[in-house]
Amino acid sequence: MIDDAHAFSETERAGVYRAIFERRDVRAQFRPDPIPPELLARLLEAAHHAPSVGFMQPWDFLVIDSRDIRERVHQGFLRENARAAEHYCGEQGARYRRLKLEGILDSPMNLCITCDRERGGEHVLGRNSMLDTDLFSTCLAVQNLWLAARAEGIGVGWVSIVDPAELGEILGLPPSVYPLAYLCMGYVSDFLDRPELSRAGWRQRLPLSERVHGNGWQAPPAEEALTLAIDELTRHP
Amino acid sequence: MIDDAHAFSETERAGVYRAIFERRDVRAQFRPDPIPPELLARLLEAAHHAPSVGFMQPWDFLVIDSRDIRERVHQGFLRENARAAEHYCGEQGARYRRLKLEGILDSPMNLCITCDRERGGEHVLGRNSMLDTDLFSTCLAVQNLWLAARAEGIGVGWVSIVDPAELGEILGLPPSVYPLAYLCMGYVSDFLDRPELSRAGWRQRLPLSERVHGNGWQAPPAEEALTLAIDELTRHP
Repeated sequence: MIDDAHAFSETERAGVYRAIFERRDVRAQFRPDPIPPELLARLLEAAHHAPSVGFMQPWDFLVIDSRDIRERVHQGFLRENARAAEHYCGEQGARYRRLKLEGILDSPMNLCITCDRERGGEHVLGRNSMLDTDLFSTCLAVQNLWLAARAEGIGVGWVSIVDPAELGEILGLPPSVYPLAYLCMGYVSDFLDRPELSRAGWRQRLPLSERVHGNGWQAPPAEEALTLAIDELTRHP
Repeated sequence: MIDDAHAFSETERAGVYRAIFERRDVRAQFRPDPIPPELLARLLEAAHHAPSVGFMQPWDFLVIDSRDIRERVHQGFLRENARAAEHYCGEQGARYRRLKLEGILDSPMNLCITCDRERGGEHVLGRNSMLDTDLFSTCLAVQNLWLAARAEGIGVGWVSIVDPAELGEILGLPPSVYPLAYLCMGYVSDFLDRPELSRAGWRQRLPLSERVHGNGWQAPPAEEALTLAIDELTRHP
């Protein structure tokens, strides 16, 4: 091993990987107990420490516990989901309709993480060639929160089957603010051992080795040792 | 504290928060030592365990160590950066030009994380109302890798000042594959104590309390206890 003065201790490192591997997109296992405010504050602080293009920090956090607001969002979900279900027919359609895809009302709170596309003025450092890097930054905040939540024993589920324009109206967002992630959050009865869609037979994890390339799309990794290390790691997960 | 049977141990939890708070966007501190293949495999596996819309897993990983490829990407960076610099004049322009914004050639390897916008076919579960959720999923993979890298003592820097179309050509990407994140990776001499743009006086961290809302953009958090907890947490970071 090369000098690793900056590496974490074994247990700290294990904590990071455990959060990554045991994090789930929770839909069906929420318990109604409220999240303590000190804990929620830690999660928001974790999200707020995500990297952002030009240190833009384009995110905002809407902590939603109103039953009325959640019911309106849920109505929107039902409509969008009915529209989505039309794309699947026969057996696949029946399977789609059996999937539970959100916990908007079951979870004790929802969190909307938004992206203000105008924060930081007209020219944001690093956001010139790729304009969507503000949205990308906001996603990094989502993942910080998701992993910290797992470490705290809190489940998070991302509901993407909502119309962002409608969500913006319900939440009174200014025109420049995009509701990027609508999350359901709460304690859970259980974190599933693998992703729900995998358990339901909808889609399986792809072999990592097939997703790793070298110095170009058509090239294998230049170092054969990397290919071998990936095989070794994924054979004994 | 409410039942937290699923929460991590104190040290594992500390590891997760440490990765979140001590992660940096590294540009200037890279050392040339190569990353061991077993370690890189762990980072790719961490990225591959990100959540994705409809379990789409739209990402691919290009492990780039060729000097020639990196020099071409670097040339593209120089051109895009000169274009970006034109937006800043006077003192701000001088400050912009002094910033080191990438470590493409200083780091021992670059990693391009891409998003295949057609993976999973025409209809991907959950990607109906918000089409960019495939890009968002890929960002979550980036953040998994970034945090695992920090735990392993590896620095990562995201170069967003590149033209994605040019990058796609250099790397031979198929038309449906978008080069979302071009990352520089390697051991570092040092992880800075705060973000480089903050140290350089370019932009500072926003107060978290001002970014947290309640049941709508105009509403404060419904629970005053949350506001107090955020004040407490950010007063003693």
